[in-house]
Amino acid sequence: MQRRRTDGPRTGVWLIGARGSVATTVVAGCAALAAGLWPAAGMVTETGAFADCGLAPLDGLVFGGHDTAAGPLPKRAEELAEGGVLPHGLPAAVHRELAEADAEIRPGGPQPGDTRGDEELIAAFAADIGEFVRRRGLARAVVVNVASTEPVDEGGAVRLPASSLYAAAALRAGCAYVNFTPSAGLRHPALAEAAAASGLPYTGRDGKTGQTLLRSVLAPMFAQRELRVRAWSGTNLLGGGDGAALGEPAAAAAKNAGKNRVLEDVLGGLPEGTTHIDDVPALGDWKTAWDHVAFEGFLGTRMVLQTTWQGCDSALAAPLVLDLARLLGRAHEAGLAGPRPELGFYFKDPDGTDGADASLAGQYEALLGFAELLRETR
Amino acid sequence: MQRRRTDGPRTGVWLIGARGSVATTVVAGCAALAAGLWPAAGMVTETGAFADCGLAPLDGLVFGGHDTAAGPLPKRAEELAEGGVLPHGLPAAVHRELAEADAEIRPGGPQPGDTRGDEELIAAFAADIGEFVRRRGLARAVVVNVASTEPVDEGGAVRLPASSLYAAAALRAGCAYVNFTPSAGLRHPALAEAAAASGLPYTGRDGKTGQTLLRSVLAPMFAQRELRVRAWSGTNLLGGGDGAALGEPAAAAAKNAGKNRVLEDVLGGLPEGTTHIDDVPALGDWKTAWDHVAFEGFLGTRMVLQTTWQGCDSALAAPLVLDLARLLGRAHEAGLAGPRPELGFYFKDPDGTDGADASLAGQYEALLGFAELLRETR
Amino acid sequence: MQRRRTDGPRTGVWLIGARGSVATTVVAGCAALAAGLWPAAGMVTETGAFADCGLAPLDGLVFGGHDTAAGPLPKRAEELAEGGVLPHGLPAAVHRELAEADAEIRPGGPQPGDTRGDEELIAAFAADIGEFVRRRGLARAVVVNVASTEPVDEGGAVRLPASSLYAAAALRAGCAYVNFTPSAGLRHPALAEAAAASGLPYTGRDGKTGQTLLRSVLAPMFAQRELRVRAWSGTNLLGGGDGAALGEPAAAAAKNAGKNRVLEDVLGGLPEGTTHIDDVPALGDWKTAWDHVAFEGFLGTRMVLQTTWQGCDSALAAPLVLDLARLLGRAHEAGLAGPRPELGFYFKDPDGTDGADASLAGQYEALLGFAELLRETR
Amino acid sequence: MQRRRTDGPRTGVWLIGARGSVATTVVAGCAALAAGLWPAAGMVTETGAFADCGLAPLDGLVFGGHDTAAGPLPKRAEELAEGGVLPHGLPAAVHRELAEADAEIRPGGPQPGDTRGDEELIAAFAADIGEFVRRRGLARAVVVNVASTEPVDEGGAVRLPASSLYAAAALRAGCAYVNFTPSAGLRHPALAEAAAASGLPYTGRDGKTGQTLLRSVLAPMFAQRELRVRAWSGTNLLGGGDGAALGEPAAAAAKNAGKNRVLEDVLGGLPEGTTHIDDVPALGDWKTAWDHVAFEGFLGTRMVLQTTWQGCDSALAAPLVLDLARLLGRAHEAGLAGPRPELGFYFKDPDGTDGADASLAGQYEALLGFAELLRETR
Repeated sequence: MQRRRTDGPRTGVWLIGARGSVATTVVAGCAALAAGLWPAAGMVTETGAFADCGLAPLDGLVFGGHDTAAGPLPKRAEELAEGGVLPHGLPAAVHRELAEADAEIRPGGPQPGDTRGDEELIAAFAADIGEFVRRRGLARAVVVNVASTEPVDEGGAVRLPASSLYAAAALRAGCAYVNFTPSAGLRHPALAEAAAASGLPYTGRDGKTGQTLLRSVLAPMFAQRELRVRAWSGTNLLGGGDGAALGEPAAAAAKNAGKNRVLEDVLGGLPEGTTHIDDVPALGDWKTAWDHVAFEGFLGTRMVLQTTWQGCDSALAAPLVLDLARLLGRAHEAGLAGPRPELGFYFKDPDGTDGADASLAGQYEALLGFAELLRETR
Repeated sequence: MQRRRTDGPRTGVWLIGARGSVATTVVAGCAALAAGLWPAAGMVTETGAFADCGLAPLDGLVFGGHDTAAGPLPKRAEELAEGGVLPHGLPAAVHRELAEADAEIRPGGPQPGDTRGDEELIAAFAADIGEFVRRRGLARAVVVNVASTEPVDEGGAVRLPASSLYAAAALRAGCAYVNFTPSAGLRHPALAEAAAASGLPYTGRDGKTGQTLLRSVLAPMFAQRELRVRAWSGTNLLGGGDGAALGEPAAAAAKNAGKNRVLEDVLGGLPEGTTHIDDVPALGDWKTAWDHVAFEGFLGTRMVLQTTWQGCDSALAAPLVLDLARLLGRAHEAGLAGPRPELGFYFKDPDGTDGADASLAGQYEALLGFAELLRETR
Repeated sequence: MQRRRTDGPRTGVWLIGARGSVATTVVAGCAALAAGLWPAAGMVTETGAFADCGLAPLDGLVFGGHDTAAGPLPKRAEELAEGGVLPHGLPAAVHRELAEADAEIRPGGPQPGDTRGDEELIAAFAADIGEFVRRRGLARAVVVNVASTEPVDEGGAVRLPASSLYAAAALRAGCAYVNFTPSAGLRHPALAEAAAASGLPYTGRDGKTGQTLLRSVLAPMFAQRELRVRAWSGTNLLGGGDGAALGEPAAAAAKNAGKNRVLEDVLGGLPEGTTHIDDVPALGDWKTAWDHVAFEGFLGTRMVLQTTWQGCDSALAAPLVLDLARLLGRAHEAGLAGPRPELGFYFKDPDGTDGADASLAGQYEALLGFAELLRETR
Repeated sequence: MQRRRTDGPRTGVWLIGARGSVATTVVAGCAALAAGLWPAAGMVTETGAFADCGLAPLDGLVFGGHDTAAGPLPKRAEELAEGGVLPHGLPAAVHRELAEADAEIRPGGPQPGDTRGDEELIAAFAADIGEFVRRRGLARAVVVNVASTEPVDEGGAVRLPASSLYAAAALRAGCAYVNFTPSAGLRHPALAEAAAASGLPYTGRDGKTGQTLLRSVLAPMFAQRELRVRAWSGTNLLGGGDGAALGEPAAAAAKNAGKNRVLEDVLGGLPEGTTHIDDVPALGDWKTAWDHVAFEGFLGTRMVLQTTWQGCDSALAAPLVLDLARLLGRAHEAGLAGPRPELGFYFKDPDGTDGADASLAGQYEALLGFAELLRETR
C-alpha cells in the first residue's frame, strides 16, 4: 500500500517497555490510523478541538524504545490479535511499520547481573535516544514510559529504580517525558533538581483508563449533589503483564495510591473501603473492574451504586499515549517547560495539579485551554 | 420541642400531589432539618456556595397543596417509616409540622365525575393558593408539581391535562412554578402565551434523581474520551405510586423522552437501546436502575460498562424539591422571569436550555453562576 | 487433512434454519471436534457418563437442512469468525465439511408469494429429507428446528405455522424431531394425533442456554432454603437474527412463556416482575442477561440477588443441538417413541414433564437415567 | 401476651457468642415465630418435609450461652432494630424472652489476663452448661458456636483455641455440638479422640449463607453443562463484628478455605482467582458479595457470569442455627453419634462428607433422607 508521508521534520516517540502490549498497540494502531484503515476512536487529539494546534500528524511519528525483553514486534502483534486485542489482519497490514519500529528498539536495563552503575546506565540510555533522533533526522522525541509497574520503594534503596534511570536519560537526551505508569520515574526526589533545571516539559503519572476514569466522573456527582459517600470499595481483575506485576502487593500499593487520589481530592477525604488488584491470567489483556459505592442521602437514607467496567487495557491506553506524545512534543516545540498540569485529564495522579479541579470535567476544560495555548503559540 | 422561628416574611411551598411520598418526605424532612435533628445531606442549597444568596431559611418555609387523595399526612409519614423511607421516630418528632401542613391541603381535581370545566378548575385552584398566601401572611409561594406522572397526550384531547390546570392556576395566583415530573405542566402549548406574559420565573421538567443523573456524568465521559457509544440499554424497577403510573406505556413514554434527552444532547445522537420502566410493587419506594453501555474504543475494540443504582426515590427527590422551592422563590423576589435554564442541574429535560451544556458538570457551573446572580441582586 | 471416517451406518442431522448462526456453528464445530482441533467443551454427551450408550460418533453425523435464505455456509462461517463467534482460522480448516453440508441444504418455505398449500409443502419437505437419507445412505435422520422464533399464533390462523409444517414433514419422513426454538413445531394441536401415531421420539421446546439455565439452578436454591421470592425481573439484550425476531412482541411472548415456566414450576407460582427481550444489533451474536431477584428471609428481611450473564448464543446452543441429535437418534434406534421427558435438562419448556422436577439438578439426574436406559437397550 | 407453652421436656440451645448479632437474632426470632408474629421464612425445618420428625417445637427451645462481652440482650436487640436487622417493634414484643435468655448467659473466656489453664476453662464451661440443663429441667442441650471467627492457628500454639475449649466443654457436658463458624472447634486434632469416644452427634463447619450458597448451585451448573471455569474471583464486603474479624488475614484464610472447598469438590480442582473479604463498617450487618466467573464453552468461546448478593448476615444465619439445633437435638435423642454428613446442606466445609455430592441439590437430597431417618426412629 502506498501511503502519504508527511513532509517536514518528524517527531520521535521513544517507548520504555517498547515490546509490551501497550507499545505494540501504539505502533500498530498509529500505522493503521495513518493509513486510514480505522477511524480514530479513542483519540482526543483527533477531534476538532485540537485542529490548528500544530500537533505532529500521525504519519509524522517515528517509534523506537527500550525493552529488557526480546521477541520481534510483528510477532507480538500477532499474539495480540490472537488474544482479540488487535483486529485480525491488522498485524499483516502494518507489518512494515512494526518491523521499522522493531529495528529501533534497544536493550533496556538493568538486566539481572548487570554490573553497570546508575550513571553508566543513564548515559547509555541517553545515547540510545540521541542516536535515534539523529539517525532518523527527527525534530525532537518524547520519551513515554509504558513499562510494567515497579514495586514501591520502601526506602533505603541504594540505587535509582529503573523507571527513574530512563527518566533521567530522557532529560539528558533533551526529550520531553511522559510517565504513563505508577512507577516513580521523574518523581524520584533525586531527579527533582535536574527536572527543574532541564527546561523540558513533562507529565504523568499513571494513565487513567478504566476504574479511575469512572471514579473521576462519579465522585464529583456525589459531591455536587451532597450525597455522602460512606464507603468506596473495588476489585480489579486483570491478566497480562500488568496483572502479574500488580498482583505483587508492593506494586499494587503504587497503583492504589493514584487510584485513591481522585477520591480524596474530590470528596475531601478518603472514604472507607479497599481497592483490590488481582492477577487473573485467564483474562489476558482484558480487565474487569467492579466498584461498590455506599452513600447516604436525605435523612440518612442509605443507597448503593455499583459499576462494572470491562475493557481492554491496551486499547484504552494506546490512544492516550499517542495523544500525550503529540501534545508534549508540541509543548516542547512551543518552549513550555516543567510539569504540565493541563494534562491531568490523562492521569490518575497528575503532576503539578495540587488544588486543581480533579473532576474529569474540570480536567477536560483545562485540556481545551491547553489546546488554545498551543494554537496561540504557533 | 421549642424551636426558633425565623422572623420576617415566610415563603410558601404549594405541593401538587401533597399527600404523596415525595411531598410527605419534603414536609417531614424540612422540619427535621430545621430542628437540627438531621444533617442536610442531599441538599445543595445548604452548601457554602449558596450562603448569602438570600434563600428562605428552612424554618421559614410553609407548606400546603392540592391532592385528589385523602389520608392525613402524619399517617402517610408513619407508612413511609414502616417502609424504611423515613427514619423510625421521625414522624412522631415532627408531628406538629405534618399536621400543620395537612391542614393546608385542599382537594385537587378533576375528580371522576367532576363536571367543572377547565376555567372553573383553574380559578378554584388559584383561589386555594391565594387564600393560603394571604391567611398565612406569606411573602410569596412557589408551586411545585410532585404528583404522579400523567399519560402522554396523544393529541386530540379536548381539555387540558390536570398538571397544566395546576400550572395555569400557579400563574394566575402569581406564583413561581416548578414541574418536578414528566407531565406537561406549563409546557402545554395552550399555556405558552400566559407563561410568557406572567413575569414569573418557572422551571422543570422531571427531576433528575437516579439513572438519568448517572447518565449525565457518564455520557460526557464517553464523549470527552472519544469512546463511541454503540448501544445504551437500561431497566428501571420501581414500586410505589410512580411504579404503577409508569407501568402504563403512555406514561413511560413521557418519562423516557426526558431520559433520552441527555444522551442525545451529549452524544450528538441517540444510540441503539431501549430503557424499560417496570412496576414492581414489592420494591415499595425503592428503585433499582440497571444500565448497560456497549462502546467502542481504539481500533474498534468493543467494551462494556454496566451500572446498578439502588436508591430511594423520595429521599433522592425531596432535597431537590426544597432546593428548587428556595431558589425559585428567591428568583421571584429578585424579579427574574421566564424559564430558568440555570436550574438544568435538577432536571432530565430542562426548560430553556437548547444548545446548553447538558453534562452535569456544566449544569453545576451554571447553578453556581445562578447563586452568584442571586447574591448580587440582594 | 486426512481424517478417520467412522465405518457403519451414519446418522443425519437435518437442520431447519440451516444457514443460521446456530446451524453454521453446529456444522463447523462438529467438524472441528471430529478432527481433534478443539476439546469438546460444552458437550454433555462427550463426558464419561455417556460412554457405551451407542451414540453416533461425531464423525458419523451428516448434515443437511432447509432454509429460506441463500448464502453459502462457508461464507456464513467466515462472517461468524469476523464477529468473534467462531475462532479465526476455523472456517478455513473445516471448509470441506461446510461445503458438504451446504450442498445438502434445500429451499424452505413458504416463501412470500408461495401458492402451495400446507399439504403440498409438508410433502415437499418430507421428500427433501427422505432423499437426503437415501442418497447419503443414512441409518436415520433427526430433524432439529433451529430457525428464528415465530410470532405466537393469536388464534384464527387458517394455515399451520412454518415450524409445524417442518415438524409434520419430519414425522412423514420417519424422523425423530427436536424443537430447539419457542415456535409451535410439533406442539400445534393439529399435529397431536400424527405425533402420537408416529411411533417416533421427539423433544423440545426452546433450548435452555442462558438466563433460564441460571434460573433453573437459582430458583431451587431459594425454594430449598425457604427464601421467599417477591419479584424476579430480567432484561435480555441480544443482537443477531434472534434479537430482531424477539424484538417483536408476539415472538417475545412465545419466548417468555418458556422462561416463566421454570419459575412457576419451582417456586409454585409466578412472582412479580417482567422479563424483557431487547434487540440490540450492536451486540451481534452476543447476549447479555440481567436478572434481579428481590427475596425475603427470616423475619421478613429483604435481600437482593443480581446476575449478569454474558454469552454467545451460538456457542451455547450448538453443543446442545449436537447432544440432542445424538441422543434422539439413538432413542429412535432403540425404539423409544413419544415425548422424551428425560431431556428436560436441555429445554425451557420441556415436553412431557408435567409434575416432574424442574430444577437443573433433577433434570440432570433424569438425563443420567436416560443414558443408563440407552446403555441397557444396546 | 399470653402464649402457649409446649408441655413435655424442652431442648436447650447453648450459644457460644450469645450476645452477638446472630445469637440475638436467633433468640428474638424464635420468640417471634413461636408467638405467631412472623411466618417462618428461611427455616427449612418448618416445611412439610420435616413434619413428624419429632423435632423440638420452637416454643420448646430454651436459650443460654457464653460470651466474653457484656451488654444486655434486649439492648442488643434494640441496636439491631436500629440497624434494620430486626423489624422495628420486635425487641419490645419479645422483651420477656430476650431477658430470660440474657439471664442464662455466663462469662466466656479466656479473657485477657485470664490465668486459668485449658483444663480449668473446659471444666468451668461444662459446669455452666450442665447447670443450665439441670436448673431448667431440659431433656438435653445443643451447643452452637456463633462467635466471631478466630485467626487460623499457624502451628506452635501452646494452648487450644477458645472455640475448641468450648467444643470440649460441650462433649464433657454431654451435649451435641454445632460449629457455625470457620473456627477450629471440634476439628482440632487434640479433640479427635474425645469426639469419637463421646457417642454424641456433631456437625459443622461454617454456615453457608451467601456467596458459598450461590457457588454451591452455580458450580454444578457449569460442571453439568461441561462449561469450563477458567477463573472464579470474588469480593465480600461486610461490616459488623465478622467484618472486623475477617479483615484480619489469618481469620480470612480460615474463611476462604471453606469457600474454596465447594469449587474444588464440584469442579474437580480450584480455578484461578482470589476471594477477598473486606471489613466495611459502614455496611453494618449487611454484606455484599460480588462473584466473577470466567468460563469457556464450545470451541473455546469465552463467556462471563457475574453475581451480586446483598444480604443481611444475621437474618441469613439465624434460621439455619434454629434448624441445626432442632435437627441435632433430635439426632441426639435418636442415639445418632459422630459427624452428621447429612447436614452438609448447611455448611461451607461439612464434616464427614469426603467424596459426597457437594452440590446444593445433592445436599438437599441428603437432608431429606435425614428427615426420613429421624421419622423412622421415633
